[in-house]
Amino acid sequence: MTETQNAARVVPVILSGGSGTRLWPVSRESFPKQYWPLTTARSLIQETALRAVGDGFAPPVVVCNQEHRFLIAEQLRQAGILGARILLEPVGRNSAPAMAAAALLIAEQTPEAVLWVMAADASIGDAPALAEALTQAVAAARGGRIATFGMRPTAAETGYGYIETGEALAGLPGVFALARFVEKPDAAAAAAMLASGRHLWNSGMFVATAATLLAELEAHAPQVLAAVREAVAQREQDLDFLRLAPVPFAAAPSISFDYAVAERTRHAAVVPADLGWSDVGSWRALWELGEKDAAGNVASGDVLLEGAEHCYVRSDGILTAVVGLRDAVVVVTKDAVLAMHRERAQEVKAVVDRLRAAGRPEAVSHNRNYRPWGFYESLIQGDRFQVKRIVVHPGHKLSLQKHFHRAEHWVVVNGTALVTRDGEEVLLRENESIYLTLGSLHRLENPGRIPLTLIEVQSGAYLGEDDIIRFEDTYGRS
Amino acid sequence: MTETQNAARVVPVILSGGSGTRLWPVSRESFPKQYWPLTTARSLIQETALRAVGDGFAPPVVVCNQEHRFLIAEQLRQAGILGARILLEPVGRNSAPAMAAAALLIAEQTPEAVLWVMAADASIGDAPALAEALTQAVAAARGGRIATFGMRPTAAETGYGYIETGEALAGLPGVFALARFVEKPDAAAAAAMLASGRHLWNSGMFVATAATLLAELEAHAPQVLAAVREAVAQREQDLDFLRLAPVPFAAAPSISFDYAVAERTRHAAVVPADLGWSDVGSWRALWELGEKDAAGNVASGDVLLEGAEHCYVRSDGILTAVVGLRDAVVVVTKDAVLAMHRERAQEVKAVVDRLRAAGRPEAVSHNRNYRPWGFYESLIQGDRFQVKRIVVHPGHKLSLQKHFHRAEHWVVVNGTALVTRDGEEVLLRENESIYLTLGSLHRLENPGRIPLTLIEVQSGAYLGEDDIIRFEDTYGRS
Repeated sequence: MTETQNAARVVPVILSGGSGTRLWPVSRESFPKQYWPLTTARSLIQETALRAVGDGFAPPVVVCNQEHRFLIAEQLRQAGILGARILLEPVGRNSAPAMAAAALLIAEQTPEAVLWVMAADASIGDAPALAEALTQAVAAARGGRIATFGMRPTAAETGYGYIETGEALAGLPGVFALARFVEKPDAAAAAAMLASGRHLWNSGMFVATAATLLAELEAHAPQVLAAVREAVAQREQDLDFLRLAPVPFAAAPSISFDYAVAERTRHAAVVPADLGWSDVGSWRALWELGEKDAAGNVASGDVLLEGAEHCYVRSDGILTAVVGLRDAVVVVTKDAVLAMHRERAQEVKAVVDRLRAAGRPEAVSHNRNYRPWGFYESLIQGDRFQVKRIVVHPGHKLSLQKHFHRAEHWVVVNGTALVTRDGEEVLLRENESIYLTLGSLHRLENPGRIPLTLIEVQSGAYLGEDDIIRFEDTYGRS
Repeated sequence: MTETQNAARVVPVILSGGSGTRLWPVSRESFPKQYWPLTTARSLIQETALRAVGDGFAPPVVVCNQEHRFLIAEQLRQAGILGARILLEPVGRNSAPAMAAAALLIAEQTPEAVLWVMAADASIGDAPALAEALTQAVAAARGGRIATFGMRPTAAETGYGYIETGEALAGLPGVFALARFVEKPDAAAAAAMLASGRHLWNSGMFVATAATLLAELEAHAPQVLAAVREAVAQREQDLDFLRLAPVPFAAAPSISFDYAVAERTRHAAVVPADLGWSDVGSWRALWELGEKDAAGNVASGDVLLEGAEHCYVRSDGILTAVVGLRDAVVVVTKDAVLAMHRERAQEVKAVVDRLRAAGRPEAVSHNRNYRPWGFYESLIQGDRFQVKRIVVHPGHKLSLQKHFHRAEHWVVVNGTALVTRDGEEVLLRENESIYLTLGSLHRLENPGRIPLTLIEVQSGAYLGEDDIIRFEDTYGRS
């Protein structure tokens, strides 16, 4: 019996499909918020995965965008999460298809296993309260329920959906019937719900057996289930990843599990809880979560404050000085600055939409690009030249490749490089260089025990990343 | 008779000694505000010099910090200002010694010449009003007066000094006796002076003959005059520059001309005028001067505004988005961000003082370093390596030099380089490279007609700029 075949263990299902636009400029499509350390020294997805480790849990199933596969594998490895199964979505189709895929995969071995479905990017401050609520939810799940967690509201928040609780369920301490879901309300409705005592914030987590989820998907979203069943059946193993079949998966309706199933099922239940939960949905939320100085500021990175009050200031790049501002958010990355009023945090999406419409790369991607072998970043782009810094992990190698429009100079500045150039192997040490003519067939490898850092100077009329022909690739990309 | 010997011409004297700390992070000691384009496409000193060209003016005398000599020469050249004499101060000693030096130099040929002394970094919007006021001031100067310009105040400004006007002077239309100077007042005193109708802002400009200035310096600041007389007598010609002798100049008391002479002389006069003058003394002043959008914002560079009101936003570097802020200043350079409340603009100095105390290079210098031959900038500094971009003007060459602690790779990415390496000459074209071992004697030259751009990768245990021995230098630096 493999670990995941033990039905006594809860299977964490981590949905990592979001792009976290409202946390721009840190969070971007190519490297969304769940992969950033925002609330602690670990990334949100690392914190999420570490909430569900130990005897009571099977290794997690993670459902994510295929573009992020190396990122997520590396982050799970760094956090010591072993045995995760990573399901790759060829396109995003919202949470109902993602959950269907996870449930189908798990049901192949243990349909009676209880799944704890959670977003990759929330923060939960109260671990003991979570453990207690989870125990109650699992009991409900084993009784055929789809249990959610309802957070007791502390403010008339208009940014969250709400859950209206019904009667207590007999034999299930701490669990209530779920009367109805309420979508993000206006201010008056939010105030009324805060006063009612029967309304809770919807955390978006679900606890249910694979069998229950599949039965309810069959009843309420048969198109979703049929398409995803096909995508799972035709999946391909790709290194450590499970790649859902693109054509059938793309045929699944894009719909949230809330709409597709949770609002319709007669088996929904809710566990009211105070988990110190936040969806980490905006810079304002990060200010609320952060540790404040005497003037109410949350600051991180190379930051200097002079007379600032109640500000959130973060620099992942250059020196940032904030003088005399109140209730402001200032976020600095290597290639973009956001300065805004803290209570306008929802408008960041409009900024990203404008940048995207203008074709600005800063809207969707970062200057530093992560690859399975390490990363590279552009230091300067000029007229017919570009300078990059390339870092290769020990023991890793890039694909065997050639370019038609550019020549490259490589200078090793740290570590050792093994370069293959037109069949010849050259070992380069610190301070040695090599020239790769246009059209030469070449490969870069770090044969050493420490990271290899290389400065690459490219020359040519066209320097786009798509001028590459890959002949062999360790990571299945050729 | 040389141009400057024609006493009918007014000699512009431009004092360029300020460091413009309150306009950090753009203005820094190594490249102060007068050399930046802040109000127009030209730098403040270019605008200042261009205010005094034409038949009525001799070429200017500029007094500046010797560290800025190549910067100022290049900027004057770009603006088409010919024949300027650039007096280099070995140390800053405030305006009285600087004016004494200019007056002594000019008096060697034409003691009766009228000097128009002005700061390099002010903005004047109304050229016809200036021409009229200058004519009146010059008439007063020829009559032995030291004339100032008094700006009619438009607000109870506490950031300026004031001038109290006396009686109209007979025979000098538009010119009044100067009753007294008033230092920067508190708010109540400023309001009282605004109401009086007799108080004007002190623009810090003076118009007088060299003979009058020297006679009044002799009468009221003899120590200043004696020291500077010695420094001018022992001056050295250095390329196109006049270098004041360091020892005697340093012996001059550091004092402003206002304190040393203007407040004491019986010959002071004032020309009231509305020149659209600003001292460009803070980011707030730049917001006031700038062209505003419908929401009152002044924006320049790669800037995106969403719901911002009455803000000043400037990016000389990365993309900068401002959302929902009001009355804010956001200034972004390549290596620092300043975000502040517009009405706290005077506190920038405190930020710079803190950075200086912490030894931060961002307090005093920029990443891009200007040299007589062009400029260089660091692209990345790592463990035992640094990457620089070097740009050499056509026809220019660096010094013949060697380093004891670093080796260098040079890759030409634009233009052509003539490299001398241990006696051998090598011509490098685009996309060619050369390696300079530790200790090699080398020199870089741009023999071509277009700028040369080079990527330099340095390796070594010590990469400081002071690891250089210069053997020959075209610019007098060896």
